[in-house]
Amino acid sequence: MTVAAPTAPPTFTYKIADLSLAEAGRHQLRLAENEMPGLMALRSEFGESKPLLGARIAGSLHMTVQTAVLIETLVALGAQVRWASCNIFSTQDDAAAAIAVGPTGTVDAPAGVPVFAWKGETLEEYWWCTTQIFDWSAEATAAGAAWTGPNMILDDGGDATMLVHKGREFELAGAVPADAAGDSHEYGVILAALRQSLTESTDRWTLAAADLLGVTEETTTGVHRLYELAASKELLFPAINVNDSVTKSKFDNKYGIRHSLPDGLNRATDVLIGGKVVFVAGYGDVGKGAAEAMRGQGARVIVSEIDPINALQAAMDGFQVARLDSVVEQVDIFVSGTGNFNVIGVDHMLRMKHLAIVANVGHFDNEIDMAALESLEGAVKVQIKPQVDEWRLPSGRSVLVLSEGRLMNLGNATGHPSFVMSNSFTNQVLAQIELYVSPEKYPIGVYVLPKLLDEKVARLHLDALGVELTVLTPEQSAYLGIPAEGPYKVDHYRY
Amino acid sequence: MTVAAPTAPPTFTYKIADLSLAEAGRHQLRLAENEMPGLMALRSEFGESKPLLGARIAGSLHMTVQTAVLIETLVALGAQVRWASCNIFSTQDDAAAAIAVGPTGTVDAPAGVPVFAWKGETLEEYWWCTTQIFDWSAEATAAGAAWTGPNMILDDGGDATMLVHKGREFELAGAVPADAAGDSHEYGVILAALRQSLTESTDRWTLAAADLLGVTEETTTGVHRLYELAASKELLFPAINVNDSVTKSKFDNKYGIRHSLPDGLNRATDVLIGGKVVFVAGYGDVGKGAAEAMRGQGARVIVSEIDPINALQAAMDGFQVARLDSVVEQVDIFVSGTGNFNVIGVDHMLRMKHLAIVANVGHFDNEIDMAALESLEGAVKVQIKPQVDEWRLPSGRSVLVLSEGRLMNLGNATGHPSFVMSNSFTNQVLAQIELYVSPEKYPIGVYVLPKLLDEKVARLHLDALGVELTVLTPEQSAYLGIPAEGPYKVDHYRY
Amino acid sequence: MTVAAPTAPPTFTYKIADLSLAEAGRHQLRLAENEMPGLMALRSEFGESKPLLGARIAGSLHMTVQTAVLIETLVALGAQVRWASCNIFSTQDDAAAAIAVGPTGTVDAPAGVPVFAWKGETLEEYWWCTTQIFDWSAEATAAGAAWTGPNMILDDGGDATMLVHKGREFELAGAVPADAAGDSHEYGVILAALRQSLTESTDRWTLAAADLLGVTEETTTGVHRLYELAASKELLFPAINVNDSVTKSKFDNKYGIRHSLPDGLNRATDVLIGGKVVFVAGYGDVGKGAAEAMRGQGARVIVSEIDPINALQAAMDGFQVARLDSVVEQVDIFVSGTGNFNVIGVDHMLRMKHLAIVANVGHFDNEIDMAALESLEGAVKVQIKPQVDEWRLPSGRSVLVLSEGRLMNLGNATGHPSFVMSNSFTNQVLAQIELYVSPEKYPIGVYVLPKLLDEKVARLHLDALGVELTVLTPEQSAYLGIPAEGPYKVDHYRY
Amino acid sequence: MTVAAPTAPPTFTYKIADLSLAEAGRHQLRLAENEMPGLMALRSEFGESKPLLGARIAGSLHMTVQTAVLIETLVALGAQVRWASCNIFSTQDDAAAAIAVGPTGTVDAPAGVPVFAWKGETLEEYWWCTTQIFDWSAEATAAGAAWTGPNMILDDGGDATMLVHKGREFELAGAVPADAAGDSHEYGVILAALRQSLTESTDRWTLAAADLLGVTEETTTGVHRLYELAASKELLFPAINVNDSVTKSKFDNKYGIRHSLPDGLNRATDVLIGGKVVFVAGYGDVGKGAAEAMRGQGARVIVSEIDPINALQAAMDGFQVARLDSVVEQVDIFVSGTGNFNVIGVDHMLRMKHLAIVANVGHFDNEIDMAALESLEGAVKVQIKPQVDEWRLPSGRSVLVLSEGRLMNLGNATGHPSFVMSNSFTNQVLAQIELYVSPEKYPIGVYVLPKLLDEKVARLHLDALGVELTVLTPEQSAYLGIPAEGPYKVDHYRY
Repeated sequence: MTVAAPTAPPTFTYKIADLSLAEAGRHQLRLAENEMPGLMALRSEFGESKPLLGARIAGSLHMTVQTAVLIETLVALGAQVRWASCNIFSTQDDAAAAIAVGPTGTVDAPAGVPVFAWKGETLEEYWWCTTQIFDWSAEATAAGAAWTGPNMILDDGGDATMLVHKGREFELAGAVPADAAGDSHEYGVILAALRQSLTESTDRWTLAAADLLGVTEETTTGVHRLYELAASKELLFPAINVNDSVTKSKFDNKYGIRHSLPDGLNRATDVLIGGKVVFVAGYGDVGKGAAEAMRGQGARVIVSEIDPINALQAAMDGFQVARLDSVVEQVDIFVSGTGNFNVIGVDHMLRMKHLAIVANVGHFDNEIDMAALESLEGAVKVQIKPQVDEWRLPSGRSVLVLSEGRLMNLGNATGHPSFVMSNSFTNQVLAQIELYVSPEKYPIGVYVLPKLLDEKVARLHLDALGVELTVLTPEQSAYLGIPAEGPYKVDHYRY
Repeated sequence: MTVAAPTAPPTFTYKIADLSLAEAGRHQLRLAENEMPGLMALRSEFGESKPLLGARIAGSLHMTVQTAVLIETLVALGAQVRWASCNIFSTQDDAAAAIAVGPTGTVDAPAGVPVFAWKGETLEEYWWCTTQIFDWSAEATAAGAAWTGPNMILDDGGDATMLVHKGREFELAGAVPADAAGDSHEYGVILAALRQSLTESTDRWTLAAADLLGVTEETTTGVHRLYELAASKELLFPAINVNDSVTKSKFDNKYGIRHSLPDGLNRATDVLIGGKVVFVAGYGDVGKGAAEAMRGQGARVIVSEIDPINALQAAMDGFQVARLDSVVEQVDIFVSGTGNFNVIGVDHMLRMKHLAIVANVGHFDNEIDMAALESLEGAVKVQIKPQVDEWRLPSGRSVLVLSEGRLMNLGNATGHPSFVMSNSFTNQVLAQIELYVSPEKYPIGVYVLPKLLDEKVARLHLDALGVELTVLTPEQSAYLGIPAEGPYKVDHYRY
Repeated sequence: MTVAAPTAPPTFTYKIADLSLAEAGRHQLRLAENEMPGLMALRSEFGESKPLLGARIAGSLHMTVQTAVLIETLVALGAQVRWASCNIFSTQDDAAAAIAVGPTGTVDAPAGVPVFAWKGETLEEYWWCTTQIFDWSAEATAAGAAWTGPNMILDDGGDATMLVHKGREFELAGAVPADAAGDSHEYGVILAALRQSLTESTDRWTLAAADLLGVTEETTTGVHRLYELAASKELLFPAINVNDSVTKSKFDNKYGIRHSLPDGLNRATDVLIGGKVVFVAGYGDVGKGAAEAMRGQGARVIVSEIDPINALQAAMDGFQVARLDSVVEQVDIFVSGTGNFNVIGVDHMLRMKHLAIVANVGHFDNEIDMAALESLEGAVKVQIKPQVDEWRLPSGRSVLVLSEGRLMNLGNATGHPSFVMSNSFTNQVLAQIELYVSPEKYPIGVYVLPKLLDEKVARLHLDALGVELTVLTPEQSAYLGIPAEGPYKVDHYRY
Repeated sequence: MTVAAPTAPPTFTYKIADLSLAEAGRHQLRLAENEMPGLMALRSEFGESKPLLGARIAGSLHMTVQTAVLIETLVALGAQVRWASCNIFSTQDDAAAAIAVGPTGTVDAPAGVPVFAWKGETLEEYWWCTTQIFDWSAEATAAGAAWTGPNMILDDGGDATMLVHKGREFELAGAVPADAAGDSHEYGVILAALRQSLTESTDRWTLAAADLLGVTEETTTGVHRLYELAASKELLFPAINVNDSVTKSKFDNKYGIRHSLPDGLNRATDVLIGGKVVFVAGYGDVGKGAAEAMRGQGARVIVSEIDPINALQAAMDGFQVARLDSVVEQVDIFVSGTGNFNVIGVDHMLRMKHLAIVANVGHFDNEIDMAALESLEGAVKVQIKPQVDEWRLPSGRSVLVLSEGRLMNLGNATGHPSFVMSNSFTNQVLAQIELYVSPEKYPIGVYVLPKLLDEKVARLHLDALGVELTVLTPEQSAYLGIPAEGPYKVDHYRY
């Protein structure tokens, strides 16, 4: 089983040939397993029955140590897997190496999972990698099977799902459209990749779409795309919205960012957070976690919001709520966590204090108007260290931009920590099982996991934290009309 | 317009005859208006168009200063109102007096709203009062109208709604059943009141039910009853679940308790909270507010939960999560905020530290097993001051029980503060308008307010806190697919 | 033993004649004893040896429930006591009644301690009361003794100490000076009282000063006066600065205010603290406690400071630090805790938001420029309830002034809670013992308690909070050069 | 000017020959200067007058980026400097390279300061390096001067000071004693170094001691040694205790650890801190900062203390206070910040949860009983990555030990951040100026900086944080008896 196709850039092959990298990754995996009790519990529960036997999963999700534990869990439950990262900077090379080599393999005889991901991909490389997770010809040959692609997608941000939808659309149209004036550079890269694909096959994406039992999607952005596809009747297969499991959105987003925002700031800049003024754009779960973390380090936090309910929450939690325009000159650290675009513009940057830090924990790099910055006359970029750039501005001042405006908790730190990801990924695995084992329950559409499974995810993480759960007595259960074993809440309960 | 019918107990008539009481209440109202910007904004917006003209509202909700501002807002929007409290201890007599006298009335010539409520009612008095808000004969006579009851209910806990349902049920049956063995004392009182009603009229509740356009319900408990009635097809008129507006449940429950729990503890006991061990049963919105308040005062908080998701949240927020049985001997202050029953039992009390404090911020007095305490051999109750009882136990130790196990934030403090109630009550007024003005939109069933109205409630409270809201640019609005003026979130968003 | 001399105003005599008042006070005392483990431990340790036998203590300290436990502790250790309050508003009448009646007395046959204090004294009454604690003629007669005054002072704020010094000064001069133009009204009242005294005796204060073994002083202000007297060689007897015991200043000031500031705000105004902007003047221990409490309730806190070190601490703790002038229009609640004067002036008040709250937790009422407010043309004072005045200002807006600008935690709440006061008062008792038992160790000067006694005070409060103290092993003790039983720190250690 | 003498190990020479290392360090310095406003202000104030002209400073302090800014500040004020680190792991090689090359030098023609430090020294190398900062023969030759050593020490932990004292002692004795049975390994290395020294010169340390005008000492441990030397009359020159400046101890210790503890944990382990149980040994300034940081990340913190006052503070701040023995099985992360030894023993480690993390933020590696761990039968050490070791224990479980039990905030992170160090180092520079410019004010003894200088340090850091300082009016200054420009507090004020 080869790790990278012949046309792959050489980088990753080189990396896994480094024995110590795979070994270091394996050490990290072992530690991470201790912090991912949900996944380990699923291995115990389903390791023998192997409900995912026959599942061929194309995974597009940050190739970190935690994802490595997820991948090996999927494999333990019977699945075959191919993997790419969903972000050009987020791969941890040692984790990728370890997963490629596999728990029982060696560098010379890798026995792991085909992984197409390394830290610092170009956009071209990124979309090449994503394409690779749909090419199951080697596996098909080995299995003597007729299929050529996956039957499940595990997605983060929706790039893999989008590729199938766009690929099929252009195959049906017989052509990939020319680049249009307003398109982003990245969209051009995607079109080029699909143009290349169309020269190789006129139906690979169409066939792939037909084979897919469904997708389980990790993030807000990806889910948003799925609901749009469903609304416009374009969605080609059922989807489970993992993002909106309580144990995902309220944990990954809030507690994950609470951890990784200061971590990323520290690794990137070593700047004392205490005493600083931190601006947090957005007071959703991500913003709540960011604001709590910054306050917990002694910063003064100013929040911005477009939604009056979230704005009122921020005020009630003791934060100043202001528009960026009103306070930009006072702020030391800017954190954008909105999912919106152009939240921090070049005009704002020109007004910032010298060496103000600009960080994105939302999703796309357009939360910060990097395009405008890159085309700003007189702006000079000086790399301080990888993922930390000083932009010297015509104002005579500089700003520090982290991870080129992309997700700094991934680019400057190591993403969400294992325990948080264990919650998210336990949802992912349960969702994969649901879609794969019970496809009849899920006609094309977007679903969230049943509350009882959401509660199960939480339940699998309590012992590790020493939490004692109280159990309803039969009398209390009858009084409340709630089963002692759950589910405990109505669907619209907000936690 | 008389304040109390001839058969009323003399207490309240006496109280409003006390000029200074009504005047003191009016001062409180004026201050409260400054803290209730949502209600005052509705008076500005709807004071001329008077959308509630013709509405006859039977209100059953704690007769506090804040409710007084609500009542005068309803009146300003055109409604006629009769009012009772929904708790025997929660009335603030000065507020009741002020509302009865009215803004332009005098003690001798009251020009306000008929109010049937005073602090410290007996259960018999309580249900007599609740009955009075359905007797609109005086208003009918004055109006030369055929109706005899209200056409709207504004309810808190569902007592008024239940009275109509039970009254009609027994009228249709032609008899009120005899007291059954397992019934609570209070249910016996209700049956007695309805038996008396049946001797006076055989169809008053049936007619009332027919006239009612709907009910707007304030609390979890009342909403729970409504969903049960709807599920069993017994619900007689549409209901708006105000409790589950975000600006109600996440504000009233969380931020209200955060304020009023320490307030009640302080007024009741003057015990230093700092350094103490506080046990909070339940980590819903009420428990979250309670835990935050206690930590904010320097207490160490231990939480109990039955729901693994909430339990995990508590752990992630840094609280120890344990069963009461495991920690009861270490705790100084017990706070129950679950909505469950028998959360704190007599066996627990017998194991508590000397003078441990036992407080309920949930709903009914059965969160704490008061019945068992009252029948415990050898237990002696010594009143320290009103609503604060020392129970000397056979263990040789005492516990301090606040408000006889009922809601201590109402009994020992003054309930939720005005600003919090302004959120809840702005929802109430908007819900009354919805049901009264657009009954066609609401067939019999239980509804929550549209998100845009929920957001409107928040929006009306921002200026008072100096909050600057960010506005989406047209480009951002298009990018997100969200109108700049809202609604901003999907319905299942959890805030 | 009479409670009040014939010339006393009738108020207090009336109050203790109210049986329920003394009984209510006794209930409060019993609860407070449970919260004052330090004092109760001293009763156990010294109740038999009675080290204060022969001590005649003139006490001038807020006559609260906690002080009542202090007084009964002093009596249990052998002392005779006479008591006045040190603030016209701070007396809790039930505590005063209980202490006057005594644990074994009755209203008709009081067997307690002569107490000269009631809530709401005039300044004339206040200084009359303070004078009474120096008139021990009844006790002298009963004892057949030659002395006429106390031999110890227990002071809070230094009024009793000042009275002796001024009285003696004027007796030596043979005359009390006439009122001078710039003198405060209160100083005129003091001069009048001493003028009256001089007509009655020409040497009572001179004799009193000679008999006094020393004073133990409770507060910053009183200590400041003592150091000034010592510096100018005018101090007449040794003083122990109780205020600067760590277990006093870092506990009473910080943790006491943290508790009683929100308590006072709530009882006075019922205004939601969450979401509000609170300005805290001063970031000493009092300001630190105030800021923490307000943040703990969800307020946004802005701090002002004159000392760059404290200002930097406030910034590092995440608070905005600004001058009052810069932010006065944004603030909802003003809290002054500086010990300075004219911190909040009328010009500030004229710029405040409508119904902004103005509260003093520092010391004198001149932290807020009440004199200027009272003489402001067009300002009208409307009492909302006792200790809460709305001042309608020429600006067309009002401000709410608590406790007439005096200590709101005493006037609007019940002062520091028992547990905090147990720390302070355990220091007081140990200081009284030191000065009375070992006068030779204390030539005229101002002293702090030895660190070992300070640590003892803390030690006596640990069990009640369930604190397990770690004990140095002999090896660790040797390694550190610190005795296992303490003292543990160098004198300049800052905690 | 050579960076390393011929006998130096090759490591460092190699490192600075790496151009990118020095350049990367210079980038870091430039960023750090923005975060060290106190030092930059001193360059502005004293850059022309050069008060340190003629000072020859031997520096022994962690060779980090921040120290580099300190060194260049000393040079800017006129001093000559030689530098070693005071910890074998704490050097940041890029900072060392930048400082050796100097702002105007190149790798080939270094024009900086002789630096003897690299990350990961052996103990032999460490003491060799420390010896080098006392060998000023090259500088003497260049200057044609008679002196051979420094005239000032800037010390951290007291190693440089100790070396002079021990060296002189053995020179006077004519021999270095043989290793004794109970001596630590490190003491043996020191003796060996001094034995070698004695073969080269019989009076170099004696001469050095005679030339030294004094030492400024950074840490608790070093200060403790100085007070012991002073008490035993062995101290050879005056010392300024920089550690006990408020702007050092209350900032560096508390706010520095608050920042660098989570930073070090994250870089070392990536373990989610939220929800975990963290044990913090010691509640001094270091422990306070550690506990606040852990709580701010959502951990539950248990504190241990030997001092009842600090224990009571911890309880009042809402932390459980327990002995390690009582809770060791519940804890996920152990943090020792006491200054004591054997705080965490092997017996504790054997009882810990699997993969519990053990971290030292105190001073010496003996806070954790590493010696006993290293000699524990059956224990196996597996390096996960540099400074992170898994110790597999006979219990069948593992513990993760950070930085081999030495300071993890230095070994696993990058030490205190620049802003915090700017406070400490501004004190250092002011202290060097005091001792060097005004030696007559400082007879042999240990001193703290005058409060006005301490306040000056704070003042120089306010603008960077946007702090507005309030200024006393002349009337207020007179009222308080405090100069408007300070000092503001009595010496024993605790902040």
